[in-house]
Amino acid sequence: MKIVSLVLCAGLLSAGAVAADPLPSWNDTGSKQAIIAFVDRVSTAGSVDYVPPAERIATFDNDGTLWAEQPVYFQAIYIADQVKALAPRHPEWKAEEPFASLLKGDMKGVLAGGEAGLAKLAMATHAGMTTDEFERSVSEWIATAKHPGTGRLLTEMVYQPMLELLAYLRANEFKTYIVSGGGIEFMRPWTERVYGIPPEQVVGSSGGLAYEVRDGKPVIVKTTGIVLIDDKEGKPVGIQRHIGRRPIAAFGNSDGDLQMLQWTTAGAGPRFALYVHHTDAEREWAYDRESHIGRLDKGLDEAKVRGWTVVDMKQDWNRIHP
Amino acid sequence: MKIVSLVLCAGLLSAGAVAADPLPSWNDTGSKQAIIAFVDRVSTAGSVDYVPPAERIATFDNDGTLWAEQPVYFQAIYIADQVKALAPRHPEWKAEEPFASLLKGDMKGVLAGGEAGLAKLAMATHAGMTTDEFERSVSEWIATAKHPGTGRLLTEMVYQPMLELLAYLRANEFKTYIVSGGGIEFMRPWTERVYGIPPEQVVGSSGGLAYEVRDGKPVIVKTTGIVLIDDKEGKPVGIQRHIGRRPIAAFGNSDGDLQMLQWTTAGAGPRFALYVHHTDAEREWAYDRESHIGRLDKGLDEAKVRGWTVVDMKQDWNRIHP
Repeated sequence: MKIVSLVLCAGLLSAGAVAADPLPSWNDTGSKQAIIAFVDRVSTAGSVDYVPPAERIATFDNDGTLWAEQPVYFQAIYIADQVKALAPRHPEWKAEEPFASLLKGDMKGVLAGGEAGLAKLAMATHAGMTTDEFERSVSEWIATAKHPGTGRLLTEMVYQPMLELLAYLRANEFKTYIVSGGGIEFMRPWTERVYGIPPEQVVGSSGGLAYEVRDGKPVIVKTTGIVLIDDKEGKPVGIQRHIGRRPIAAFGNSDGDLQMLQWTTAGAGPRFALYVHHTDAEREWAYDRESHIGRLDKGLDEAKVRGWTVVDMKQDWNRIHP
Repeated sequence: MKIVSLVLCAGLLSAGAVAADPLPSWNDTGSKQAIIAFVDRVSTAGSVDYVPPAERIATFDNDGTLWAEQPVYFQAIYIADQVKALAPRHPEWKAEEPFASLLKGDMKGVLAGGEAGLAKLAMATHAGMTTDEFERSVSEWIATAKHPGTGRLLTEMVYQPMLELLAYLRANEFKTYIVSGGGIEFMRPWTERVYGIPPEQVVGSSGGLAYEVRDGKPVIVKTTGIVLIDDKEGKPVGIQRHIGRRPIAAFGNSDGDLQMLQWTTAGAGPRFALYVHHTDAEREWAYDRESHIGRLDKGLDEAKVRGWTVVDMKQDWNRIHP
């Protein structure tokens, strides 16, 4: 009841309307309390920590933060099909990582290259396609693609508590962004429908693009160049390039998000950083310091030292997927 | 007071109330009629040409379209001071264009390199500064920088009819973007105040950025790399990278905007393209096919063939600056 009345007050303050618990999938633990306290602080007019709506930028990692990332990044499933289809035309891939591992079916070998390796696969296989063609390809694929373990649609492997968090922040006039190591063109076709995040608020690893006129029709073609690996040090760079303002809140789940959380919290005024810690082997997966995917090691240490919020999925979330 | 009530009225218009003229600085000629007819078509619910607000993306060139660009791009004035200050440390600049021309005071020679040359100057002189330092430097400079000819503040050399157009489009739920050959970090510190366009809706020529920790504090440093020359073919690329949707309306004044207008109008459904033609030697400047700055040659021909709107500043605008 305490939380409900707290939330009522927050709702009344920001929108002037009565509201129920905006985060029903979150248990009443410290993580939820920290989120609500922060949002109240920055959105209460007259508060010493008030932040104007235009500056309420919140950035979210995608893989492992907004949707699952085990047993492999979901984009890797999409890319694997394309690499296999294109392999006959690229004999050199047999000796070049991470292509070689992928073609042998050795996903561990592929993942050893991290998100940078996956970005390399993505860029290599997508080069030559127009952005319109690529968008159609992703849209068609994601409409039916299912998780190899659960059999659910990949777009249903999103985290219900994080969907509620996105909506709660937007209701309090935050602008929510994705800042992910995943490919920017891979995410944009479906993030608006799934997360309510429009294409222009998606930042991701980016390949080269070239404007051409083909058969009298202007097209934009994906090239082999790599413009941004939006992981680790690349995340603050992607934020600066695309948003041009420092976020006041950032959400991640791995060491790949550490620099984004550092950059966000190093700004003046109220700041919020949150790590999703995958601790639920029964309802989801449990992994951190030793994982090839979504390793959370340095970040976990730094979160403790700096007092960042660490979500214990098992304890803090009463529901995982919608 | 006029502007305030104007903007208020534009807001009422979209909300279904009676409104005054939202474009009072535009004479009642074909250009104004074409703008209003297009906005009505895409924003009238139930119309066959209705476009959902999320897809109402409008992109504007800056130099020569939103503010003046004669006798030199205004960013060049900023950069010139920096090049002069740094020249003693760069003896090689004496033999390298466009540095050599600039140091000799030969602005025509500098401009011969086009926007790409200016971008090169910008990247070279800004490298090593943090983005925070650069933002402060630009903000301080633009607060007092005056036009060499008119003596007015550079931020007052904006076009009143275009300010009205920006407000009119936003009142009709368009999202307005700048897509300029100018430096992205040069524009962002002041576009919100001057045009109502926030940093995240500014696309421009972009240099390399690197995340570093200096003295225990995270910073983003400008490097010498060039990530995007946001001119000509670079404009559709910048649009795709930053916005991820094709605009339905685009506004420019030179051949550097031609590909943006082509890309915009090549999409399906209702599209709008407009060129500002500088025809007013008395109140502003008159230039087109032979100009080193803002050359409008191929674009003028293509506009005629394709029926794009061409603003005749002398005939169409009853007021130039605020």
